[in-house]
Amino acid sequence: MIRVTRRYRFAASHRLHSEQFSEGENRALYGKCNNPHGHGHDYVLEVCVSGPLDPVSGQVVNVSTLDQLVASRVVQDFDHKYMNADVREFQEVVPTSENILRVVEKRLAAQWNSVFPGGGTHLESIRLRETRRNVFELRTS
Amino acid sequence: MIRVTRRYRFAASHRLHSEQFSEGENRALYGKCNNPHGHGHDYVLEVCVSGPLDPVSGQVVNVSTLDQLVASRVVQDFDHKYMNADVREFQEVVPTSENILRVVEKRLAAQWNSVFPGGGTHLESIRLRETRRNVFELRTS
Amino acid sequence: MIRVTRRYRFAASHRLHSEQFSEGENRALYGKCNNPHGHGHDYVLEVCVSGPLDPVSGQVVNVSTLDQLVASRVVQDFDHKYMNADVREFQEVVPTSENILRVVEKRLAAQWNSVFPGGGTHLESIRLRETRRNVFELRTS
Amino acid sequence: MIRVTRRYRFAASHRLHSEQFSEGENRALYGKCNNPHGHGHDYVLEVCVSGPLDPVSGQVVNVSTLDQLVASRVVQDFDHKYMNADVREFQEVVPTSENILRVVEKRLAAQWNSVFPGGGTHLESIRLRETRRNVFELRTS
Amino acid sequence: MIRVTRRYRFAASHRLHSEQFSEGENRALYGKCNNPHGHGHDYVLEVCVSGPLDPVSGQVVNVSTLDQLVASRVVQDFDHKYMNADVREFQEVVPTSENILRVVEKRLAAQWNSVFPGGGTHLESIRLRETRRNVFELRTS
Amino acid sequence: MIRVTRRYRFAASHRLHSEQFSEGENRALYGKCNNPHGHGHDYVLEVCVSGPLDPVSGQVVNVSTLDQLVASRVVQDFDHKYMNADVREFQEVVPTSENILRVVEKRLAAQWNSVFPGGGTHLESIRLRETRRNVFELRTS
Repeated sequence: MIRVTRRYRFAASHRLHSEQFSEGENRALYGKCNNPHGHGHDYVLEVCVSGPLDPVSGQVVNVSTLDQLVASRVVQDFDHKYMNADVREFQEVVPTSENILRVVEKRLAAQWNSVFPGGGTHLESIRLRETRRNVFELRTS
Repeated sequence: MIRVTRRYRFAASHRLHSEQFSEGENRALYGKCNNPHGHGHDYVLEVCVSGPLDPVSGQVVNVSTLDQLVASRVVQDFDHKYMNADVREFQEVVPTSENILRVVEKRLAAQWNSVFPGGGTHLESIRLRETRRNVFELRTS
Repeated sequence: MIRVTRRYRFAASHRLHSEQFSEGENRALYGKCNNPHGHGHDYVLEVCVSGPLDPVSGQVVNVSTLDQLVASRVVQDFDHKYMNADVREFQEVVPTSENILRVVEKRLAAQWNSVFPGGGTHLESIRLRETRRNVFELRTS
Repeated sequence: MIRVTRRYRFAASHRLHSEQFSEGENRALYGKCNNPHGHGHDYVLEVCVSGPLDPVSGQVVNVSTLDQLVASRVVQDFDHKYMNADVREFQEVVPTSENILRVVEKRLAAQWNSVFPGGGTHLESIRLRETRRNVFELRTS
Repeated sequence: MIRVTRRYRFAASHRLHSEQFSEGENRALYGKCNNPHGHGHDYVLEVCVSGPLDPVSGQVVNVSTLDQLVASRVVQDFDHKYMNADVREFQEVVPTSENILRVVEKRLAAQWNSVFPGGGTHLESIRLRETRRNVFELRTS
Repeated sequence: MIRVTRRYRFAASHRLHSEQFSEGENRALYGKCNNPHGHGHDYVLEVCVSGPLDPVSGQVVNVSTLDQLVASRVVQDFDHKYMNADVREFQEVVPTSENILRVVEKRLAAQWNSVFPGGGTHLESIRLRETRRNVFELRTS
């Protein structure tokens, strides 16, 4: 079984702040990530796909097809944006890395079967590196 | 299911040498890592935690809490130290990366339930990068 | 002659937009860096210092002293901030990497002689890595 | 349970081209990787091994033994070579990263039991980093 | 004075071999880089530009303009190519990193004044990272 | 003019402590680097050489010759060693990065003319990366 991991990058800003907390609770929970005007990161997004090896092409997945999906559904909407204001889903949930992963997973899953028909190609996991010190992974299975 | 990996660093020195081997056996087994006065590395320690996503905070684990645990129980005792002489556990076992992982795991596990009460937060694995060429991982499950 | 380069990091967001340009000119010049709500980066700041080698300590500069200067005058004010709104100087100039370097240089120079008295310690250059692909350097001499 | 991952490097060139496809199909499928004279990469190969911890040596695997196996069976034959012409197996299959992993796995498996007798040492997975953006992993179990 | 360094990448293959040497001399001089079918690298090319800071835009150089120049004159012709066969200049000189730098410098210089009219923008140096271990720099002044 | 930078690595340990300071002064000056049993780093050493380009070989320096010099005079004596005890020169001066550079420079210079006869090959600078955050450079001219 072979897994292919493809790496993407986007530069974005966010602010961690929940309307369900008081000012003091937000500050205590999120620290400087709660600063009022937001701040930014160079996010690294890794998409991990598995599937049967095509014996002729010698490939598990057509990487260009995956690139187009991730670019059109994720990178284009996130790159050089302020996620709190510019990405629809983050008007409802706080743009923590955990929630970013959930949004990315939902967006990819919604198109997956039409982009990779036949059911053999599987989205295994998504990793988001917020900084060198923080990496988050969502496993779909 | 979401996993959070947090990265720490410490600079330390060690010598690989077992009293249960002869000088020749030590040299044959450990090579230049057996040199008499020790040598050092910039270790990278990654702690991987999983747990349920808190729907309000959007987080799996409070990273500051994890940082305090790892700093007080591991980094503070290992950083800028000669592990053979300065870390109690290595007076009994050789400070190979494998044994360092076991010591780190035991130290974190001893405090885990009081630091993360409720049982939802799980220590999944610990990785130690000795050098770029050598990475060791201890999985707890 | 020995030079010491010390590396710092800060995560910040910015928007490239000049009031002296029209909307169209801003968009043409700055591209997606002109997006209205800003975006962010993990900036790497390198401060390069030279000076005579102290024959007893074996050091060119006291790194802790340099760290305190850079932390108090730069990192503390820039880290986890939206530079356009949160850093005073960027209410007058666009926070391009070039201008960030000039602001950092002015802030360090203003304190330099009181922090490093005697004139032997010299601020050689400041480098700012906006992303892996873009590095900017200001040489003071 | 402890896993040891050891990293190797080799610089090699390849061309993605299958005799079973037409010129147009090759170009459509492999893009610029189908360019007629090949191109190259600095490949990173990671070999991941697990096994019981030897209580005296404090080690899971003798790294020198692993190095000799990987050097003699893989790196020596791949490094500074044009894989299509110089590595026997790629006269039959296209040297995609997926197929390189399969060749590496077959070569290591053929020697494994004589190099690591007793059955306790297990080849868990092999990872190949073609570029920063593309990582492939073959899991043996 | 501010310098801007912009990073590009291309994957290419080459063979070090001079017709002016015997087979034995080629092998002695170039070692495994002389292997008959070539081998490859992921080259990193850094282009370093200086110039006056535009007080309104806050920029030293229009990075998009630089990107177009380097893409059209260098990356497009080198990426995913076998330099010995595919890049005209290397039919006369050996594609060592030193000679690659000279070819890149000549190609950029030929277009420089029409792309950056006025004479204020200066090509300071070009760096080529062949591997992590080997970096080459050509300074134009 | 072309410069070649070649990168080497060695893992070593050291303790910063001067007999000319009191215990308190040592602790105040060197902080945790003064811990009594030493600590270690994975040092990166970069040697930067310039010279005329040989028109036939297309090279500025024979890298194998440089490697043999640096290996025999530096890496072999420093790698996997405790510099305070194992490297002769550090029985007289404190093994700070600045002093390590001076020792390396003296060792290379002593052999330079016999290894690179003719005077065309010049040792431009030596850089030592102690950690990611600290880089030291000695320029010979």
